[in-house]
Amino acid sequence: MSVADPARMTCPPPRPEPGTVLLGHGSGGQLSADLLHDVILPAFGPAGAVPEDAALLSVDGAHLALSTDAYVVNPLFFPGGDIGTLAVHGTINDLAMMGATPVALALAFVIEEGVPVADLSRICTSAATAAEAAGTRIVTGDTKVVGRGAADGLFVTTTGVGRRLPGAAVSAAAARPGDVVLLSGPIAAHGTAIIGAREALGFDSAIVSDTRALHRLVVAMIATAGPAVHTMRDPTRGGVASALNEIAVASRVGVEIDEVTLPVPGPVAAACDLLGLDPLHVAGEGCLAAIVTADAADGLLAAMRSTVEGQHTVAVGRVVPEHPGRVVLRTVVGGRRIVDPLVGEQLPRIC
Amino acid sequence: MSVADPARMTCPPPRPEPGTVLLGHGSGGQLSADLLHDVILPAFGPAGAVPEDAALLSVDGAHLALSTDAYVVNPLFFPGGDIGTLAVHGTINDLAMMGATPVALALAFVIEEGVPVADLSRICTSAATAAEAAGTRIVTGDTKVVGRGAADGLFVTTTGVGRRLPGAAVSAAAARPGDVVLLSGPIAAHGTAIIGAREALGFDSAIVSDTRALHRLVVAMIATAGPAVHTMRDPTRGGVASALNEIAVASRVGVEIDEVTLPVPGPVAAACDLLGLDPLHVAGEGCLAAIVTADAADGLLAAMRSTVEGQHTVAVGRVVPEHPGRVVLRTVVGGRRIVDPLVGEQLPRIC
Repeated sequence: MSVADPARMTCPPPRPEPGTVLLGHGSGGQLSADLLHDVILPAFGPAGAVPEDAALLSVDGAHLALSTDAYVVNPLFFPGGDIGTLAVHGTINDLAMMGATPVALALAFVIEEGVPVADLSRICTSAATAAEAAGTRIVTGDTKVVGRGAADGLFVTTTGVGRRLPGAAVSAAAARPGDVVLLSGPIAAHGTAIIGAREALGFDSAIVSDTRALHRLVVAMIATAGPAVHTMRDPTRGGVASALNEIAVASRVGVEIDEVTLPVPGPVAAACDLLGLDPLHVAGEGCLAAIVTADAADGLLAAMRSTVEGQHTVAVGRVVPEHPGRVVLRTVVGGRRIVDPLVGEQLPRIC
Repeated sequence: MSVADPARMTCPPPRPEPGTVLLGHGSGGQLSADLLHDVILPAFGPAGAVPEDAALLSVDGAHLALSTDAYVVNPLFFPGGDIGTLAVHGTINDLAMMGATPVALALAFVIEEGVPVADLSRICTSAATAAEAAGTRIVTGDTKVVGRGAADGLFVTTTGVGRRLPGAAVSAAAARPGDVVLLSGPIAAHGTAIIGAREALGFDSAIVSDTRALHRLVVAMIATAGPAVHTMRDPTRGGVASALNEIAVASRVGVEIDEVTLPVPGPVAAACDLLGLDPLHVAGEGCLAAIVTADAADGLLAAMRSTVEGQHTVAVGRVVPEHPGRVVLRTVVGGRRIVDPLVGEQLPRIC
């Protein structure tokens, strides 16, 4: 190999220092799972705990759920919403994925000195409006300000307290062979909209974030089928691929999905193609994947389609006893490929 | 005035852009109150809401409190604790100030790429240990990672769900003329320890943060005097001055405190003197100010002194009908001066 070999002349990517936190640790994919299992759960969790979207609590007879999420999306304002709407919807959805409806939200800001007060005000209004539309309220909060360069704009952490729906018994560990995989709507819109806004790529303006609250859809699902809804997960960071892999691992089952059934809107598919992204790895913020018993699937499909949030629900696959812990895609041409969870970081700061 | 006048040769301080968020908006003092009243509460709150340390909720018969706080302390590790201990104690204390004991905590990290995993692990362990010592648990969490330069190290937002103590009826708006002001221990230790650690000022090593959980002290207080405890507030950002001013404003009363009774440890007083700080404006993280009826004051003083956290409790003043909304200090030499809330920012990122 000559010294002029072009492959040797390009700079290697910066090598991460060993033992430091990497961007990929926040991806929602495999590195996130590693950090959770190697560092965070050993400190906090009972050994072998299944990571769920929200914790369940019972206090004086009240059956509650608690969930927290930090939002660092960049840019703060994007087609279809802003960090305020996203922070409210995302936390409501984490409660909903555990079968709970929101009772109250708490919002904590970390703001970089120099952020326009008008931006903060707009974000507060967005968050309050999103909460009200979802039938809940932001009841408490906190504001910290750090110097210029000590944060990038504004971060929000939203915590939600929810009331568990009677009849809900969902868990990432509850998927069983024979179950059907339902997807409540198009995937990958949020991540594509963010990367488009950030890079000013001038995508088709039809790509807007799908950020929305899903708890009313969940109420309809639990009312229809109760404990026949085994698992729900909203495919945010890491996309459908990571969500289904988490379920496959936690439930020790295989998951098979059919590429032909996957609802990827045309402009989103085109944008992902352009960017070299697999839509299965790109976040949505307004759809959910549900693993339900085969008996209940038709009734649930009808019930979900009767809601605004779930009108585009489709069945995309099934749970199988083979290849536990793995997700397999049956391709359009009839082939099969393993769908890995996202490894590393694809689109930092999409939520 | 000649052009060589040295006063003209020094650079003026950077002038804040109008309409932007300033460091002082995170101080816990007057600018924080302005931002809250002008921007945040109009979006979220019912008009005229009293800002309390925690929101009260009733869900299916359970009487709960909810509080959230973002922690951005710099450095992450300091004498007496780290951001993990602080984030647990601070949120437990916000619940306690509303008469509630912690049921569960949620923790959300925003981490700058490159933070050592060992630091994150140590902080998780500190937080888990602090929670366990306080009889509660961190039940859920989230981790986001941002690129280098997009955050300064690591931020934590802690949210607490608490159970309200029967008999507790505290509010910042409930102080009444004739009430007595109790202070559960020495003030200003945390802020002094942080600035000492940050600036490597080589203070007397006796100055360590007083970060601790106060809910057991509050349990003893409510068990002793119930609704005779009108108001509690922990003087964190903005110090005792801001805490008492908030109470004076919310309750529309005057507060008078006696300088001679104020518990400022010698090394803390010396350090504040050196730095030109008023200890009344410097944060503690392990004491509380309580406004209680005169009848109950002696019994409470005894009950508080019988606890570990409250063993140094003193009476420092009283509530008066004069000068509503103002705090007045009777000085050692018999003079009187108005104690303003902190204006602007004195010690950024102390919590």
